[in-house]
Amino acid sequence: MTASWIDNQKNLMLFSGRAHPELAEQVAKELDVHVTPQTARDFANGEIFVRFEESVRGSDAFVLQSFPAPLNQWLMEQLIMIDALKRGSAKRITAVLPFYPYARQDKKHRGREPISARLVADLLKTAGADRIITVDLHTDQIQGFFDGPVDHMHAQLQLAEYIRTNYTLDHITVVSPDSGRVRVAEKWADSLGGSPLAFIHKTRDPLVPNQIKANRVVGDVEGRTCILIDDMIDTGGTIAGAVKVLKDAGAGDVVIAATHGVLSDPAAERLAACGAKEVVVTNTLPITEEKKFPALTVLSIAPLLARTIREVFENGSVTGLFNGNA
Amino acid sequence: MTASWIDNQKNLMLFSGRAHPELAEQVAKELDVHVTPQTARDFANGEIFVRFEESVRGSDAFVLQSFPAPLNQWLMEQLIMIDALKRGSAKRITAVLPFYPYARQDKKHRGREPISARLVADLLKTAGADRIITVDLHTDQIQGFFDGPVDHMHAQLQLAEYIRTNYTLDHITVVSPDSGRVRVAEKWADSLGGSPLAFIHKTRDPLVPNQIKANRVVGDVEGRTCILIDDMIDTGGTIAGAVKVLKDAGAGDVVIAATHGVLSDPAAERLAACGAKEVVVTNTLPITEEKKFPALTVLSIAPLLARTIREVFENGSVTGLFNGNA
Amino acid sequence: MTASWIDNQKNLMLFSGRAHPELAEQVAKELDVHVTPQTARDFANGEIFVRFEESVRGSDAFVLQSFPAPLNQWLMEQLIMIDALKRGSAKRITAVLPFYPYARQDKKHRGREPISARLVADLLKTAGADRIITVDLHTDQIQGFFDGPVDHMHAQLQLAEYIRTNYTLDHITVVSPDSGRVRVAEKWADSLGGSPLAFIHKTRDPLVPNQIKANRVVGDVEGRTCILIDDMIDTGGTIAGAVKVLKDAGAGDVVIAATHGVLSDPAAERLAACGAKEVVVTNTLPITEEKKFPALTVLSIAPLLARTIREVFENGSVTGLFNGNA
Amino acid sequence: MTASWIDNQKNLMLFSGRAHPELAEQVAKELDVHVTPQTARDFANGEIFVRFEESVRGSDAFVLQSFPAPLNQWLMEQLIMIDALKRGSAKRITAVLPFYPYARQDKKHRGREPISARLVADLLKTAGADRIITVDLHTDQIQGFFDGPVDHMHAQLQLAEYIRTNYTLDHITVVSPDSGRVRVAEKWADSLGGSPLAFIHKTRDPLVPNQIKANRVVGDVEGRTCILIDDMIDTGGTIAGAVKVLKDAGAGDVVIAATHGVLSDPAAERLAACGAKEVVVTNTLPITEEKKFPALTVLSIAPLLARTIREVFENGSVTGLFNGNA
Amino acid sequence: MTASWIDNQKNLMLFSGRAHPELAEQVAKELDVHVTPQTARDFANGEIFVRFEESVRGSDAFVLQSFPAPLNQWLMEQLIMIDALKRGSAKRITAVLPFYPYARQDKKHRGREPISARLVADLLKTAGADRIITVDLHTDQIQGFFDGPVDHMHAQLQLAEYIRTNYTLDHITVVSPDSGRVRVAEKWADSLGGSPLAFIHKTRDPLVPNQIKANRVVGDVEGRTCILIDDMIDTGGTIAGAVKVLKDAGAGDVVIAATHGVLSDPAAERLAACGAKEVVVTNTLPITEEKKFPALTVLSIAPLLARTIREVFENGSVTGLFNGNA
Amino acid sequence: MTASWIDNQKNLMLFSGRAHPELAEQVAKELDVHVTPQTARDFANGEIFVRFEESVRGSDAFVLQSFPAPLNQWLMEQLIMIDALKRGSAKRITAVLPFYPYARQDKKHRGREPISARLVADLLKTAGADRIITVDLHTDQIQGFFDGPVDHMHAQLQLAEYIRTNYTLDHITVVSPDSGRVRVAEKWADSLGGSPLAFIHKTRDPLVPNQIKANRVVGDVEGRTCILIDDMIDTGGTIAGAVKVLKDAGAGDVVIAATHGVLSDPAAERLAACGAKEVVVTNTLPITEEKKFPALTVLSIAPLLARTIREVFENGSVTGLFNGNA
Repeated sequence: MTASWIDNQKNLMLFSGRAHPELAEQVAKELDVHVTPQTARDFANGEIFVRFEESVRGSDAFVLQSFPAPLNQWLMEQLIMIDALKRGSAKRITAVLPFYPYARQDKKHRGREPISARLVADLLKTAGADRIITVDLHTDQIQGFFDGPVDHMHAQLQLAEYIRTNYTLDHITVVSPDSGRVRVAEKWADSLGGSPLAFIHKTRDPLVPNQIKANRVVGDVEGRTCILIDDMIDTGGTIAGAVKVLKDAGAGDVVIAATHGVLSDPAAERLAACGAKEVVVTNTLPITEEKKFPALTVLSIAPLLARTIREVFENGSVTGLFNGNA
Repeated sequence: MTASWIDNQKNLMLFSGRAHPELAEQVAKELDVHVTPQTARDFANGEIFVRFEESVRGSDAFVLQSFPAPLNQWLMEQLIMIDALKRGSAKRITAVLPFYPYARQDKKHRGREPISARLVADLLKTAGADRIITVDLHTDQIQGFFDGPVDHMHAQLQLAEYIRTNYTLDHITVVSPDSGRVRVAEKWADSLGGSPLAFIHKTRDPLVPNQIKANRVVGDVEGRTCILIDDMIDTGGTIAGAVKVLKDAGAGDVVIAATHGVLSDPAAERLAACGAKEVVVTNTLPITEEKKFPALTVLSIAPLLARTIREVFENGSVTGLFNGNA
Repeated sequence: MTASWIDNQKNLMLFSGRAHPELAEQVAKELDVHVTPQTARDFANGEIFVRFEESVRGSDAFVLQSFPAPLNQWLMEQLIMIDALKRGSAKRITAVLPFYPYARQDKKHRGREPISARLVADLLKTAGADRIITVDLHTDQIQGFFDGPVDHMHAQLQLAEYIRTNYTLDHITVVSPDSGRVRVAEKWADSLGGSPLAFIHKTRDPLVPNQIKANRVVGDVEGRTCILIDDMIDTGGTIAGAVKVLKDAGAGDVVIAATHGVLSDPAAERLAACGAKEVVVTNTLPITEEKKFPALTVLSIAPLLARTIREVFENGSVTGLFNGNA
Repeated sequence: MTASWIDNQKNLMLFSGRAHPELAEQVAKELDVHVTPQTARDFANGEIFVRFEESVRGSDAFVLQSFPAPLNQWLMEQLIMIDALKRGSAKRITAVLPFYPYARQDKKHRGREPISARLVADLLKTAGADRIITVDLHTDQIQGFFDGPVDHMHAQLQLAEYIRTNYTLDHITVVSPDSGRVRVAEKWADSLGGSPLAFIHKTRDPLVPNQIKANRVVGDVEGRTCILIDDMIDTGGTIAGAVKVLKDAGAGDVVIAATHGVLSDPAAERLAACGAKEVVVTNTLPITEEKKFPALTVLSIAPLLARTIREVFENGSVTGLFNGNA
Repeated sequence: MTASWIDNQKNLMLFSGRAHPELAEQVAKELDVHVTPQTARDFANGEIFVRFEESVRGSDAFVLQSFPAPLNQWLMEQLIMIDALKRGSAKRITAVLPFYPYARQDKKHRGREPISARLVADLLKTAGADRIITVDLHTDQIQGFFDGPVDHMHAQLQLAEYIRTNYTLDHITVVSPDSGRVRVAEKWADSLGGSPLAFIHKTRDPLVPNQIKANRVVGDVEGRTCILIDDMIDTGGTIAGAVKVLKDAGAGDVVIAATHGVLSDPAAERLAACGAKEVVVTNTLPITEEKKFPALTVLSIAPLLARTIREVFENGSVTGLFNGNA
Repeated sequence: MTASWIDNQKNLMLFSGRAHPELAEQVAKELDVHVTPQTARDFANGEIFVRFEESVRGSDAFVLQSFPAPLNQWLMEQLIMIDALKRGSAKRITAVLPFYPYARQDKKHRGREPISARLVADLLKTAGADRIITVDLHTDQIQGFFDGPVDHMHAQLQLAEYIRTNYTLDHITVVSPDSGRVRVAEKWADSLGGSPLAFIHKTRDPLVPNQIKANRVVGDVEGRTCILIDDMIDTGGTIAGAVKVLKDAGAGDVVIAATHGVLSDPAAERLAACGAKEVVVTNTLPITEEKKFPALTVLSIAPLLARTIREVFENGSVTGLFNGNA
């Protein structure tokens, strides 16, 4: 006999970029592990340096990064961390991106444009990621941009549960802020027991490119409690405008629900002033103090991420976690 | 001086699979070339054999295939043709797919499913395709499934021009047959000068999976000429059902416009009987005699394909061909 | 300590395409597992949909597909199943192809042809297959077309054992139906204890391309029991012709032995009428009722496949299974 | 004849990221082309959008980007531009990086570190870059990190020419600021006609990791004009310290010469105060007003880049441009 | 207008490894170019260094190497030359291997063996080869080992022409030295106007692995002029043994014809003494003085290689050069 | 339940090329395994054949090869062994190269040169190596040439320990034989407790390319015990010359220490005569009898290799083995 044998165990290790350490700590706590200690710093010219303080050989590594501004820096940090894990002999590397960056550039809107969301998938693969875990992609097709397993989780159930608990379903109409998210609104309507739907129709002047002429509500919103849904709120301009259009059309209360609270300036100000009764988001991105305002409710995405990581590690099914969609 | 020099010319060669030879002939005529002669036959067990009758070395090769049933056979034929071109030293290989197969499987709808539309892109790449030309993808994101240039052409302008010429714009409402194509309907509305929009809202019974409980029209269609749009019509069940819902809601004439006339059995029968005044499609797929019925109008996609191929060959911009979207 | 540890087990899962479910059931029974339940269906236009009914995460997946007509459909189905397993986080994916499709197109016979057998290997790799198990390739070199482990099993031992049991070895001459399989006939002769060899020499008219002028038997067959061997029988034309040539040359009984019973129409008719005493094949392809005829004997390949899968799963050596050739 | 023929011309197009537009304009002027017009902007959350205003099909594209802070943003911008060119059918894409980012992380200094310089090369390749042009890499081996042609230009000749013109060669000693760049100093000494060499020896305390105990000058510097050379000056701490050590050892004038003036804060202040007679750099990075100080001389790298681009475009040899090193 | 335009010419450059410079000179003369000057030398420990003396940018490069012993050294030299061309921006690189090394290891004969012929194809690809030109592969399937165009030329026509000119066709029988090359012998028979065939049947003792028990001639050779064909002659043991078997069976003159004269020691001695009337080979490998003997005739392969290179460069068809097989 | 489960164990298997079997035996003994039995032989024309005598399925395979002359043969043998392991289903393949071949060609010194060290990394990857273990690379950056984990071990500690034990540290100066290894010398100086440094400055005549005009010692060596360090000693010309320069400069004893004793002819003669008191190397390369001379001391590298292999197998950290550098 020429070989030496050992039992093959495997170990879960959690790594965190510097963009949103609170979320990593919450996930770690749910998983009952520690975030692996590391040195991460920036050189004066902006180059990032990372070194792990413990051996990562043979580990089942989960690398969590969030993507607030400066987003490109955090993306590069995650790529560098993955490269270090690959070169340090991690057995499997899962990139965890609660918010997938550049998701809006998922196609060429016109000629000579990049498809940056595909580029991000390829960069992660090149650095060494074997798998991706993400939440509420801007479009589901982005799953197909990555050549490998993608666990695409949905925060919608959690958000809808919150709405169900806090609002009277009978008066609800689910509203998509534009023509592109009516399908998602329809799923919301189903999960709220069959609510009616509406959306905002933007008409464009064919003589003036990209100029929006008018916003019309299609569907019945008069006197209804409108749940205005979206995947992300960036500067809040579109969504705040939608609240106004709904109010002008006679809507009752308007509640905004979105997974990703990007909340770039001046989102907090706009949302606070737009007339919405409540704005509900999750913490896939850090909600810093200056982004907060009284009507804002933040739900934690950590339990969903932790359960997904646990199932991936243990080779269980994550389908049960999100109603059959992964 | 140790080298021998020659001028570097390049030549366009057009190749056609056996699925839709008429379309290839139309494209060849527009381009003023011949379809390259080839031997293509099936062995008794279904294996396909292809051999080109002329040298393909150094050519700028365009390989046109359509995808009626049996679709998998035609896909394999196109892959085999591309392989033969690669091994025969073609300089650049562009796969031309007027209808992109498996486009509906562009994401995992639930867990443990394939993303077949990405698989198709990868198979084309593996066989040797450098570029893709296609028309009206089921979702725009499929462009990003291919790692290389994709010229994504739109037949919508051609279809809309037909509507503008044959119908009175004042009475038109553009209707999406479901919640997923409202964005496309909005583009139609813009190109018809700002028509109103509507869509069919399908409600599902949360207690019975995948069971549709009711179809409601959202938007105003009473007395309107409804342009019911879609990317493809397969068996026609959904679209014929939509016509009924619109009629029940008091719509005037209903005109169906779709790029891809798959028209699988019993589409012809259903569409002929559904009450639509006219059904307009293009010939991205062959419209055989048994698929035809009186109200069917077929526009030729060949001029659009030919102009795109010409521009790609001559390195011109195709943006002008389709209003800025590629 | 920052990591969470678990023992690393692995599990064998068997998946089956729809081409030959009986074979999959036989293999499953030998392995004492069930075929993993799945949904597989065809859309009206021929697109295939597959979804697995159980979690496949971390599994050692074996995907069995057979390749009767319509062969391209079954190939695409296997590719789609592999893609779904890859995206569903199977740990290792082995494509099991008892009959390797397109094996005859393993080289360019003339210029501007594909090498479809290599293409098939690349398509399997692209979809996500890590390994291949196959039986009696048309040429052994096809092993080298796949960039990874190929377990190339031989049914010849099983067939030869059958001959040894049912025929008197003293009178046997092993005959190759053409000049290309004399090496295989030689291996047969060795396994039958050193029988003499013969083959059919096809002479071609140099003035008429691909025209066969005459068939001559090279070697001594007069009064001998001829075991006429081949890897596959498709329409049976060549092999039935060979029987006639042998009979004309004074051969005694002629027994045909081949691994793959493709038996495309009109093989059954031809073989029944050709004068062969017996035709022995395996069930690497389904032998439907209309393919059967009295002189046909079908051996099951399931035990060989099951033992190979078991050894691969348990990391044993499969060499013992087939006399040292893998 | 089935093919359509055209002459094959090729065209040079220059693209510029937003990090250092002045350099791009200088290069464009030398090449007698314009920088291709583009739209480039940042979304509120930091995502970058790029679109070219002219067709790029078939072009020989050169994408120039510089890397001052915020360096990761500029890297992502260059990757996105390359992706847009790839998808827009550029024929060949050359990434021009006058300063190669992350060059200092060209190896694992200790365990569990990334090799970020290799990662950068792989990211460029993944985005679609076929070739790289760069200047004075931190180590020459970085050329080997890219799987394709790298034109590695040297600014040293230009810098040395400046020294030769402005200083008396007889009194010069070339000094490396540490033990790692003595080889480069030796090349400088050769190009200055055989000057003596010296370097600073840093001794470390074996009991205190990474703690430098003392700096000693090895070599004779007393009364000499010291040309203190380096590839880049970041915060200037090391190089300013080296000036002090040289002065303490009795050196005469000290002149600092480096290719890359990163000059992160507080470099300007330190260098102005360190006692160096002159600091000579090139503009591979933008030298903004706040980075300038009286003793700073900036040479333009644009002529070297332009000549290299021209030679690459015309398939000439660039070896003559930099003394045989590429 | 932002771009600078030039006409796109291309130039053929021929490069030669050090294994067989005479062949390269012959090919160069036929092509009317010079072999590109280079520095190539071995370091004391056997490492090879190569540098080209002229710019190779944009060239259509053909890298000719032959493979006598020490074969591994020459393979590494060719790989290094290809790497240097890739990094030096050659536009297209064609590896020319008149004799393909490791062709005999084109499959796993038993378990746990390499498939070295595939490995060689992959190594060439990895180094940067875009295409391969080769002559008379051991098996045709090796074409499929390379992922790209392979021009597989045949010297058989040239050899057969020689036989036709020098021997009386009426008395000829074509003989394969073993069961594996009967198909090739059949092609020879066709090209000699329909000669009869024979082959040597080797019987093995099933109780002693790999032990050959007896050699029998299958087919009629008595009194015939036997053309004993093979792809290569290495040490000559098999082929000399075959001559003896033929003579014992009453054959008349025996003429040996093979493409590749490897002629490893003691081939010259064996062949000189074996009783063959003439041995005809080509110079795909160098035939040094010590390999020569009176009955040896060497035909030059240079014209065939040169015509193939010319056709590849000019994008012509090479099919005419070798009777339709490529 | 459809799956069959087993525990997942893993086994270490050690394989050895034929270049340096003694080293493999030493490593095997340290690891308490046997070298896996194999058949390895050369065909007459130099082609290598390898076959393993035991199943390698699922193994954690370590393939040790050394690189004395004929180096290219041993490299090809290692590639072939790796290919056989890949095709034989080894689970993970680590190439162990105590001496990394072609390490000196780690960059283009001038134009149109290969980067052979990168090529070697790519060849290993292509053959199927997942990881590399190596010792004292010529430059650290070569780690980055491989796309995967590289365990880069250092023999310097072992050599330095030997020096510390056998020489008086007070009188030591560490000397680099040229300007390129001063950084390594500095590390030596640290590990010897802070010794002074010196190096040999080679001046070149700018009028005569590559001509060295003079060698000057920079640093103080008079009366000092000089430890002259290098990574490898090939023919010994440079290092013997350095001894002479040091002696001329008044040095006391000179001790040469290098990791890799290539010792190509006439190294033994030169080193024996050069005046060095002792020459210390390791056995990363075989030190045959004719390479030995009285002043030569050879340390075994086997313990370091064995400990590294053990740690890699058991997923331990190897950082402790070499002072934090991996």
